[in-house]
Amino acid sequence: MNTTDMFGGLDTPCLILDADRLERNAERMRLRCDALGVTLRPHLKTAKSIDVARIAAAGEQGPITVSTLAEAEYFAAAGWRDILYSTAIAPAKLARADRIQREHGARLLFVVDNVEAVTAIGKEASSLGARFGVLIEIDCGEHRSGVAPASPALVAIADIIGASAPQIELTGVMAHAGHSYAFDDKASVTALAEVERLAAVSSAELLREHGYRCPIVSVGSTPTALFAGHLSGVTEVRAGIYLFWDLAQLSRGVCAEEDIAVSVLATVIGHQRNGPSLILDAGALALSKDVGANRFMPEAGFGLVCDAATLKPFGALAVTIVHQEHGNVPVPDESWFARLPIGSVVRILPNHACLTCAAYPSYDVLRGGMLTERWSRVGGW
Amino acid sequence: MNTTDMFGGLDTPCLILDADRLERNAERMRLRCDALGVTLRPHLKTAKSIDVARIAAAGEQGPITVSTLAEAEYFAAAGWRDILYSTAIAPAKLARADRIQREHGARLLFVVDNVEAVTAIGKEASSLGARFGVLIEIDCGEHRSGVAPASPALVAIADIIGASAPQIELTGVMAHAGHSYAFDDKASVTALAEVERLAAVSSAELLREHGYRCPIVSVGSTPTALFAGHLSGVTEVRAGIYLFWDLAQLSRGVCAEEDIAVSVLATVIGHQRNGPSLILDAGALALSKDVGANRFMPEAGFGLVCDAATLKPFGALAVTIVHQEHGNVPVPDESWFARLPIGSVVRILPNHACLTCAAYPSYDVLRGGMLTERWSRVGGW
Repeated sequence: MNTTDMFGGLDTPCLILDADRLERNAERMRLRCDALGVTLRPHLKTAKSIDVARIAAAGEQGPITVSTLAEAEYFAAAGWRDILYSTAIAPAKLARADRIQREHGARLLFVVDNVEAVTAIGKEASSLGARFGVLIEIDCGEHRSGVAPASPALVAIADIIGASAPQIELTGVMAHAGHSYAFDDKASVTALAEVERLAAVSSAELLREHGYRCPIVSVGSTPTALFAGHLSGVTEVRAGIYLFWDLAQLSRGVCAEEDIAVSVLATVIGHQRNGPSLILDAGALALSKDVGANRFMPEAGFGLVCDAATLKPFGALAVTIVHQEHGNVPVPDESWFARLPIGSVVRILPNHACLTCAAYPSYDVLRGGMLTERWSRVGGW
Repeated sequence: MNTTDMFGGLDTPCLILDADRLERNAERMRLRCDALGVTLRPHLKTAKSIDVARIAAAGEQGPITVSTLAEAEYFAAAGWRDILYSTAIAPAKLARADRIQREHGARLLFVVDNVEAVTAIGKEASSLGARFGVLIEIDCGEHRSGVAPASPALVAIADIIGASAPQIELTGVMAHAGHSYAFDDKASVTALAEVERLAAVSSAELLREHGYRCPIVSVGSTPTALFAGHLSGVTEVRAGIYLFWDLAQLSRGVCAEEDIAVSVLATVIGHQRNGPSLILDAGALALSKDVGANRFMPEAGFGLVCDAATLKPFGALAVTIVHQEHGNVPVPDESWFARLPIGSVVRILPNHACLTCAAYPSYDVLRGGMLTERWSRVGGW
């Protein structure tokens, strides 16, 4: 099929989602979590879509993870009930969180890592007459947030919850090995997965020794979920990018190129002989300026340029310079101008899908190579 | 006034626009263009707002520049009639462009730099029965797009328009010194402004010698508009970032810190003793990953952290690491935890305002230090 037949009705740039790839990706992680004996709590900060969330859990509305209250609101309104908000919550946001719980019968879980924060949240929850569950965040080495594993600081937080924040229910612990992205070899990630697991499990055990219930022991990042040797003592895994994949993951050997399910459809709008290069209508806003893949794949640029119909890269063609609405793609010679004339379309594999997708209000969905649907996404905060 | 009184009702992160600063910035550029004897055609790709556009032109609905058809549609629907779409147009977008012209009585101008593109646009316009104006783009040295100044390629495009694209009216030439951002000294930018001016004016003269009308001679970038020695032969200036300013411009000496009119309001959601650092609820999506300021101002990080009430930077505090929803701000010592407790708000001066603003659907507008309005923005394509 030619690309006009495939994509003729779409305004570029737009976001294309290959639902066949998405379904395979989703199933692989479900099977993986089944094999590990843990619950999958998909992180929906990348997808931000109820249609994708349904596929992630094979139609169930089980536990999910979100990164904004806008996502919490959107998924709660659509029927999800067990929602972990994995960004630390500001006390001023609790009133809205409480509305989400009340209006939709959902349960929100927060993460905390700090006595002052627990006190402030407890006070605010009390004045709202609201109840929230919390997980204590454990720092397993990334040092973004969290308390040291199995530390006095951990017990101090549990004690404060028990003693002075009756509206807050301690529900467990969570750890996030975000620094798994520092590696491109499986052995290092397997080792780190064990660090993440031990951080969470040892902390849960310490809390139980102090008399606290700790039903949820949550770990996750896509690489550690895939490469962990085992997850003994863990109850659930959070992962998100596995639904879509991107060049940042490909560059680290976590996925294959043909797993990547999202791409940006763009039009060739210019031929620059000074170069030579193609000019696309996909620049910094359409692709984002994230270059997280480039540590291990410098040739990724701001995204790899692919045949629009097959999503196969044109050798090493990449968007190497972005302006707000222009993407510049150097080509080896001017024969590419005939191959990709002005007005032709290409697809771009995203460097970092979380940031690229954020620019779009919807996905145009391919099944069996045919556009079948448009799925909305939730943006903002 | 304390920050709860100032910003109490807002969900963070959100975009704050200081209308007093905006009005001063707008007036300064209007006076500058008056002094240069040129028409100001504000570029609205940063602001994407009819309220800002009104201020840019002191209430007039004169000529404007846009970067997407979504902007063209939005401004045409609100009454603007003379709209330069400054991204090269794909032939498949002409049907929508034609609808915008017909439904709203607007006139769209396109830029072209290529015989093949003119032919394709002419053919499509003819089949639509649509008429469009075009400016031929002149490459004044950035090499993103455009033909060489006063070159045979320029005349070849004009000849094609005249001979085979009767639906296309040649309306003039335009040049854009986007590479003015490579300098941080006024003398270099003044020299480049003269290169930009000469590129446009010499091209217009060559076209006139060949018998073509060339009523519009358009140049622009904010730095060259401000630092040009004169603009003899130029009819209009395009500039946009001067309305808001940002650290990228500050770093190049083009504006003062107290000119920057947009900032991101964020909440302190964590204190990380491992560092130490503050964690804000403004990360990669809220700030963007653009670090264009950092060439000349490495300390800018992903944005400078300021007192929320006064918008004065806290010394050199900056967001130095971003995750999707977390911004990490290293602090000299833990005394900052008492100064900025969890739940307190800060404002962040954006590294590159065009990209930061793109994440938000609206501005919360300050006048005289009080929130007075919310102005919508147009996003997407």
